Amino acid sequence: MKVIYYNEGEDNAFWLAGLRAALPQAEFRLWLPGDEAPADYALVWDPPKNMLAGRKGLKAIVNLGAGVDKLLQMGDALPDVPILRLEDAGMAVQMAEYATYAVLRHFRRFDEYDRQAQRHEWQFLPSNNKRDFTVGIMGLGAIGKRIAQSLLHFGFPVRGWSRTRKAIQGVHCFAGTDGLEDFLQDVRALICVLPLTAETTSILNQKTFNKLAFGAYLINIARGKHLVEDDLLAALSSGRIAGATLDVFQEEPLPPGHPFWSDPRIAITPHMAGETFRDDTVRQVVEKLHALERGEAISGIVNRKNGY
Amino acid sequence: MKVIYYNEGEDNAFWLAGLRAALPQAEFRLWLPGDEAPADYALVWDPPKNMLAGRKGLKAIVNLGAGVDKLLQMGDALPDVPILRLEDAGMAVQMAEYATYAVLRHFRRFDEYDRQAQRHEWQFLPSNNKRDFTVGIMGLGAIGKRIAQSLLHFGFPVRGWSRTRKAIQGVHCFAGTDGLEDFLQDVRALICVLPLTAETTSILNQKTFNKLAFGAYLINIARGKHLVEDDLLAALSSGRIAGATLDVFQEEPLPPGHPFWSDPRIAITPHMAGETFRDDTVRQVVEKLHALERGEAISGIVNRKNGY
Repeated sequence: MKVIYYNEGEDNAFWLAGLRAALPQAEFRLWLPGDEAPADYALVWDPPKNMLAGRKGLKAIVNLGAGVDKLLQMGDALPDVPILRLEDAGMAVQMAEYATYAVLRHFRRFDEYDRQAQRHEWQFLPSNNKRDFTVGIMGLGAIGKRIAQSLLHFGFPVRGWSRTRKAIQGVHCFAGTDGLEDFLQDVRALICVLPLTAETTSILNQKTFNKLAFGAYLINIARGKHLVEDDLLAALSSGRIAGATLDVFQEEPLPPGHPFWSDPRIAITPHMAGETFRDDTVRQVVEKLHALERGEAISGIVNRKNGY
Repeated sequence: MKVIYYNEGEDNAFWLAGLRAALPQAEFRLWLPGDEAPADYALVWDPPKNMLAGRKGLKAIVNLGAGVDKLLQMGDALPDVPILRLEDAGMAVQMAEYATYAVLRHFRRFDEYDRQAQRHEWQFLPSNNKRDFTVGIMGLGAIGKRIAQSLLHFGFPVRGWSRTRKAIQGVHCFAGTDGLEDFLQDVRALICVLPLTAETTSILNQKTFNKLAFGAYLINIARGKHLVEDDLLAALSSGRIAGATLDVFQEEPLPPGHPFWSDPRIAITPHMAGETFRDDTVRQVVEKLHALERGEAISGIVNRKNGY
């Protein structure tokens, strides 16, 4: 089995060593421009277009992350073979940590306590009532489900929304365009972990914000293009949105001088919510390659039409 | 059944209404100085000494909180009747929220990301490895156990320490003075939820800090007197302790000019980690009063010698 590998921004020697140790019978090679030698599989994260465009003989492409939005932007240039994406690989628990942290920070008013402490102020603030504090999760794949479980663990009322209807114990699930308005109603904290597709681009916009509880909190750990950034600024000005924790942005790194930097109601992190850890990723990639070789059923196959 | 009630710092009308609605057959009255009329039970939080000293005819005292340290300071002046304390009453989940928030904040380096964002800096920081990130919990009652469960939910290695040995699934339990050193070894985040007793006063001191992993993090949500504050300042100076989240202090409110206010490595909250919510408290008090009246077995009886 010959495998070409390209993993933008990662330590290639470290990753290749991990892959080779886990699957010694395969030949892994770092893809370099000009390499048109045969390969059965391509393991990629954010690859240059000419790595895959027109390539023949591939059996499948494995995306070394959960989001395939960048890959699918290649459109018809992408070989017509199955694309697999990572479904968890250690990311889900990290996303759950991040989302839970951000919800607790707002719910328990830790951000306000921090600002008080900076002013050397000791002042008890009335607490929020958890029964009224409905958290809404947009996107109910492996990541959204794990986030829901963490919030349920702390007793929050949890709602979820996805393209197709899901059933998750303890979560009030809504689906599709028709279900969006009911889902958003009375939500106090909205978490976005949707895949980025034509349908979900700009889904975090003024219209969406207006359907949430007044003064709701926004957490975006999916993709920057889900959010209409000007609409968030307007919603913060009107008080419709009380604050936001954002890990992703239209442009990354977030440009100097961007208004988000200077708004104390926005907590900014540099796209660190879900790291793909090598060992977890390698384990999942190897399982998928084995299943592919044996022709077994396999999860995480991307539906190009749906975009994830 | 006649019940006298004193609840320092709370809305008495609101609490008495809740108690009366839950147990209409009892007579609840707000205790006022000079009231020496008969009573079967006393429900108290931080009562004046002369409410209880020398009082005859009481069947039991119910402490409207988990910590009985202030009550037991009355010593022999306290009538020789059973003292009951709240074991949870909605506090445990709040303490778990607080502790989990503080652990995640340090583990995921959110405090550093906040400081970077204040400087408009976008910079990925290497992540901590959860397998190496052992969290130690001092105190394994209802609160400590609930905290352990939350940290286990996120996959942290969890250790616990208590006076007498406990068994909690997934938690490596240590006990007594003999077990303290082994418990502290390699702990990266130490959470204190101990009762305040003669034995636990000043337990968070230089000797304790020196046994933790170098650069460990401290979270104290028990009592201010558990911590030797000068030892923490020294441990922060040497780097032995990397930072702390503190909800309780030797003197509360934390006095203006106290060095903790101006150390950015110390996060300060005004004793808000575990609020006693009226409805949860009333439910637990009523259960305890029923059990007492019927002579049934009852949990939460304070052992005066142990101090909790």
